[in-house]
Amino acid sequence: MTTSTAKQQDIPTFDVAIIGAGLAGSLCAKQLSSAGLSVCVIDKSRGSGGRAGSKRISDTSSCELGAPYIFASHPETKALFKNLVKNGVAAQWKQISSKQIPGFVGTPRMSSLTRHWLDQVPFITSTKVLQMDRFTDADGQLIWLLRNDQYQACVKATKVIIATPAHQAAMLLATHSDLAVLLLRANQACKQYQSQWAMWLETQPSDLKAIIELKDSPIQRMIKDNYKPGREGAEVDRWVIQASPEWTAQHLDQDKQWVAQALQQAFAEHTEQRVRQHGDPHRWFFSRYTENRGNKTYAWAPEHQVGLAADWLCQGDAEGALISALTLTDWIINNPASLQTEL
Amino acid sequence: MTTSTAKQQDIPTFDVAIIGAGLAGSLCAKQLSSAGLSVCVIDKSRGSGGRAGSKRISDTSSCELGAPYIFASHPETKALFKNLVKNGVAAQWKQISSKQIPGFVGTPRMSSLTRHWLDQVPFITSTKVLQMDRFTDADGQLIWLLRNDQYQACVKATKVIIATPAHQAAMLLATHSDLAVLLLRANQACKQYQSQWAMWLETQPSDLKAIIELKDSPIQRMIKDNYKPGREGAEVDRWVIQASPEWTAQHLDQDKQWVAQALQQAFAEHTEQRVRQHGDPHRWFFSRYTENRGNKTYAWAPEHQVGLAADWLCQGDAEGALISALTLTDWIINNPASLQTEL
Repeated sequence: MTTSTAKQQDIPTFDVAIIGAGLAGSLCAKQLSSAGLSVCVIDKSRGSGGRAGSKRISDTSSCELGAPYIFASHPETKALFKNLVKNGVAAQWKQISSKQIPGFVGTPRMSSLTRHWLDQVPFITSTKVLQMDRFTDADGQLIWLLRNDQYQACVKATKVIIATPAHQAAMLLATHSDLAVLLLRANQACKQYQSQWAMWLETQPSDLKAIIELKDSPIQRMIKDNYKPGREGAEVDRWVIQASPEWTAQHLDQDKQWVAQALQQAFAEHTEQRVRQHGDPHRWFFSRYTENRGNKTYAWAPEHQVGLAADWLCQGDAEGALISALTLTDWIINNPASLQTEL
Repeated sequence: MTTSTAKQQDIPTFDVAIIGAGLAGSLCAKQLSSAGLSVCVIDKSRGSGGRAGSKRISDTSSCELGAPYIFASHPETKALFKNLVKNGVAAQWKQISSKQIPGFVGTPRMSSLTRHWLDQVPFITSTKVLQMDRFTDADGQLIWLLRNDQYQACVKATKVIIATPAHQAAMLLATHSDLAVLLLRANQACKQYQSQWAMWLETQPSDLKAIIELKDSPIQRMIKDNYKPGREGAEVDRWVIQASPEWTAQHLDQDKQWVAQALQQAFAEHTEQRVRQHGDPHRWFFSRYTENRGNKTYAWAPEHQVGLAADWLCQGDAEGALISALTLTDWIINNPASLQTEL
């Protein structure tokens, strides 16, 4: 028994464990640790960012195959970006901004945002959390124990925030019988997801504009990555090509080589530019949530101290992920004793 | 589009895809393929058997760390084993049988049962199914598409049977928003699971009896594996040591070396036998379901053509897994047009 207890004590313990190091999870971590809570973040990937991550192309360059920019249409996101710009990790992208709705990118790259928020936060990478267990500690407090895909114990925490796409949240919530209300919220959101193929390619410089949206093409949108603030002056134009949801659905299970060829051809037909170099297409299996039913911007089950923050709970876009994180963490910080379910 | 369709046609298609090659899944496969349906089975492990599998120790010997024997207390399981004995893949174990309730083992090993049932069935190993998608084919028929942990398409089928522990069933069902009724059934079963540490060890032959059950010990049960029919005449006694659920829960996250030492010590204290050789302990994270609420022995959602068969739906033991499989497949075969939900 003594040895067993010692063994359990070896597992790191936090006030809050956050699953997912995308925009929502990383901002939750920043807000809660700033409020004095001990926080750790766990992600299945090797780095932070999730769908707002950056792909390294060479030692000096990278590009964004996911969220290319983030609009700030609400006062709270405007205030957030004002601060990020002051900290040198974001910049307004004039070419996509309107007077009412400025658009921002991370500097020097999109993943700088989540790296900034996680700067002081323990971050466990390459770890899929696949099981939630609960036990009562010596003081009678309920503690969550998170396990990885081998059912090895990773982290203990009194609160858990799941900040992943709805499918992954639903899978994790399904493993504990007390979380059925949150489980059904996530499960029912699964039907509204779209997938997206995306890839980068390079051409010689041209005066084509920063964002081109297409109809009746495999391509939905092309973003000139090197026009983003802080990346000007490149000797090539680096484009990110985002396939349309419909075309992606039709070609979801094609191999990458076939997809690369089809998207390059569509690009050439529209731009008449020759592709000099390109990367492998990336398939965002859970790319965007396409419905906003006007629910709360987050979910919180106070009797279990488990919450959800993600784009699929708010707007279905990158700004929504940020608002979801801000509103959930505000609730947790300001209503520590509330037993009201927020859903 | 043509290429895409060709690509989709590459994915193998069956009447029924069965997830899990344990007792329930393998017997479902046998019953449905005997009734003329095309069936495939998918399992995350390299072989069949699940918790009724066999562990290879050397080229000539193996032992069972999971179900050590199967009781046949019902007419349908008695009939099933009569047939298996006739086929040479099972034998009655006299030492554990009573007149009313005979007990059986697989011959030459427990995994012979599932191997026998899967003999003529396509069997996809080392594949975790983690996503269920659905689409309508050219004839307007709804088809399930099962994806692995990389979201790669594995199999298409009109019917799906999930024959796994409740947690794994719940995780998979959570990925599709139409399956909430089955999802909640599996999710609510998660609370009743126990884990179990088990290991094998060898001593010189003794006249200790085949099954020893202990109280107030880390060990719940010791099974002399070499007393099973067809394995007599060994030069050593090979024991399988099953830890108690309570002791396992207290020591769930210990490393294997510590567990091996503790169980050997408990074994030595009781038997006064010296351990000559032993294997690594195995942790059955989902070992046994401890409640039988008298629900149906299976679940079937006819509008989605998805069903559940497993020990946790019937008795919580190996015989229950078999009854669950027999009753579910009987229903499917005899009521092809019924739209009644069976739960």
